Amino acid sequence: MTITTEPFEMSLAALRARRGNKWNRYPADVMPAWVADMDFTIAEPIQRAIEKLIVEERDYGYGYRAGENSLPAAFAHRMNDRYGWAIDQDLVLNVTGTVQGMFVSTMGLSEPGDGVLIQTPIYPPFLMTIEKSGRRLVENPLRDTGSGWELDIEGMRAAADAGTKVLLFCNPHNPTGRVYTREELQAVGDLAVERDLVIISDEVHADLIYSGHKHIPIATLSPEIAARTVTLTAASKGFNLAALRCSVIYFGSQALRERFRRVLPDYVLGSSSVVGIDATVAAWYHGQPWLDEVLKKLEANRDYVAQFIKDQMPGIRHHPPQGTYLSWLNCEDLGLPGESPYHFFLEEAKVGFNQGGDFGPLGKNSVRLNFATSREVLDEVLGRMADAIERAPALAR
Amino acid sequence: MTITTEPFEMSLAALRARRGNKWNRYPADVMPAWVADMDFTIAEPIQRAIEKLIVEERDYGYGYRAGENSLPAAFAHRMNDRYGWAIDQDLVLNVTGTVQGMFVSTMGLSEPGDGVLIQTPIYPPFLMTIEKSGRRLVENPLRDTGSGWELDIEGMRAAADAGTKVLLFCNPHNPTGRVYTREELQAVGDLAVERDLVIISDEVHADLIYSGHKHIPIATLSPEIAARTVTLTAASKGFNLAALRCSVIYFGSQALRERFRRVLPDYVLGSSSVVGIDATVAAWYHGQPWLDEVLKKLEANRDYVAQFIKDQMPGIRHHPPQGTYLSWLNCEDLGLPGESPYHFFLEEAKVGFNQGGDFGPLGKNSVRLNFATSREVLDEVLGRMADAIERAPALAR
Repeated sequence: MTITTEPFEMSLAALRARRGNKWNRYPADVMPAWVADMDFTIAEPIQRAIEKLIVEERDYGYGYRAGENSLPAAFAHRMNDRYGWAIDQDLVLNVTGTVQGMFVSTMGLSEPGDGVLIQTPIYPPFLMTIEKSGRRLVENPLRDTGSGWELDIEGMRAAADAGTKVLLFCNPHNPTGRVYTREELQAVGDLAVERDLVIISDEVHADLIYSGHKHIPIATLSPEIAARTVTLTAASKGFNLAALRCSVIYFGSQALRERFRRVLPDYVLGSSSVVGIDATVAAWYHGQPWLDEVLKKLEANRDYVAQFIKDQMPGIRHHPPQGTYLSWLNCEDLGLPGESPYHFFLEEAKVGFNQGGDFGPLGKNSVRLNFATSREVLDEVLGRMADAIERAPALAR
Repeated sequence: MTITTEPFEMSLAALRARRGNKWNRYPADVMPAWVADMDFTIAEPIQRAIEKLIVEERDYGYGYRAGENSLPAAFAHRMNDRYGWAIDQDLVLNVTGTVQGMFVSTMGLSEPGDGVLIQTPIYPPFLMTIEKSGRRLVENPLRDTGSGWELDIEGMRAAADAGTKVLLFCNPHNPTGRVYTREELQAVGDLAVERDLVIISDEVHADLIYSGHKHIPIATLSPEIAARTVTLTAASKGFNLAALRCSVIYFGSQALRERFRRVLPDYVLGSSSVVGIDATVAAWYHGQPWLDEVLKKLEANRDYVAQFIKDQMPGIRHHPPQGTYLSWLNCEDLGLPGESPYHFFLEEAKVGFNQGGDFGPLGKNSVRLNFATSREVLDEVLGRMADAIERAPALAR
């Protein structure tokens, strides 16, 4: 089997043959629409870089990537190119995933029992980080205004008690797809300064932003905010490289870097394979044209999902995401039978979403849909949902 | 450039063109004989497995490797196949390197200030683990009997004070190449039980054992010893896959596993790429015929080095290793000029070894030579050494 890199959309048969998590978690009669990776082949320059390594060089001894081939240099290039952000390469730390980055940043920069502020509903590893590290959950729900999701700054101020030491931030926000404005970020940054919070900012979805919106790394707002900010990012989400396990922790100051290193020596973190590094480097220098094409497709899919819901499943509350390829669908008003909408759709529609309850109790009536797939798969997912909803009243009896 | 996988010996020109650490750390006029990877291409089944992934499947979404394709299953197969050791797959933890495994095991299973017992001279990350984690070095030097390296069990007993909690063990021992006998291991295990030590056993060189010797995982000695032992291993050393970053921590009991998890949640450790996992799985099921061939070559190189030293550099004290492809060369009697033998050979012979002093103060007059290379490179390394030694008296004036 040979799959060409362009066009990047894959047939259902090719997708079903994949060995990754997305197409293997659920039985074959279920259409998966969950985990956040894309059903597309990757960018040609990335594929070429890793084929060069694997097919031509076949060099698997201890890696060495210096100069512009190094991960810190590629990260510096990308941040400058996208945000005009001049980073210090000495403050870049390689880890194998953004969730790992979240865990180690939280453990390295706070103490057990410290409060960690998050905006719920939230990507489940945020909750796991707090729970498994013995920190204390400080919850600041996003507000559904009826026309979108709003950051509740006053609520954040009220929630952040004296024992709150960390803001575990997510921008673009997963699962709501909010891309925060400069004004919102400034308010968040100011509060962090006022309350002396460390900001751990997961910006792994930063590459996935739709028309009319703009990603702003919170560390770029001011030197004062940067000095207390750890930025987590990777090429893995935008360029679809999750399995290659390569992410970056960027410390906004030497002081933060040193404080972290004293608790968790670098060797604790492990490191990425040369495959992950070469792929990330290729993505950050040469991946943007591909990403621009993918974003057009994703934006069209986003709009398609929104329109379909409006037309065929108007009982679902849904605000089209400003970024990410995830739609957060509140099914509360549908009054579906069964344990949760997740279970309903899995059993009755044979569609496998992410379960809303995993994103915190606020999410229990929601599911997260991944629309980074072919129109063929998307039509099947949405069609099955609509059919099941239509059958729901009969099922509930 | 295409490099065939067989024969596995590479030309000097091909080696010089490599992008890894070994051939790039030193200037081009220096012949490298340092970091522990091999100047050979890898086994065909491993190359095929990763080419399948990269060239055919091109699937980089979140990985999923179940059943016999999973790392725990392949580890179980390998341990059973080589040692008749029945492991529990639930006690296998994936990390990205054996040094990472050493750091996290030490930090997860002891407290700052605890004593950590090691056999010196020792692979530098052992010393770094103790220093950077704030543990206390408890030193138990190996004894040079004149005819080989001996584990000093009585010295170990004397060194292990009440505050000593961990034995950070290395078998086969790096840098001396000792492969411990069952009797030695039993004595070590008994002492660990007697003094209630956790054994963290780095066995990453276990695949590299020469005629007349046999690797015995210390955890196989008895259930009582297993219950306190963490075994660190990987396919990376024997199968030359360091850059793919895939290692295993194996906990000898559920209690040890739980104790570790409470201090360091699994997410702290990150995880290997699917490339590293698929390569390791292929190595553990299908790599042994290649390894058998490599071992013949390595054993011949080992003997060649020993004979050359005996004939041409008799002032070097050297015990041919029983395992590993590393020769530990004590140059004290040569009375070389300069800061250390490492600096002497680097500057005067243009040969880049590992510096003995990095293996602890006991190693300051030694260098570590890596003989996993072509005869062409080895001849150059040894020839340059002998020439420089011949010129040393003139240089010292």
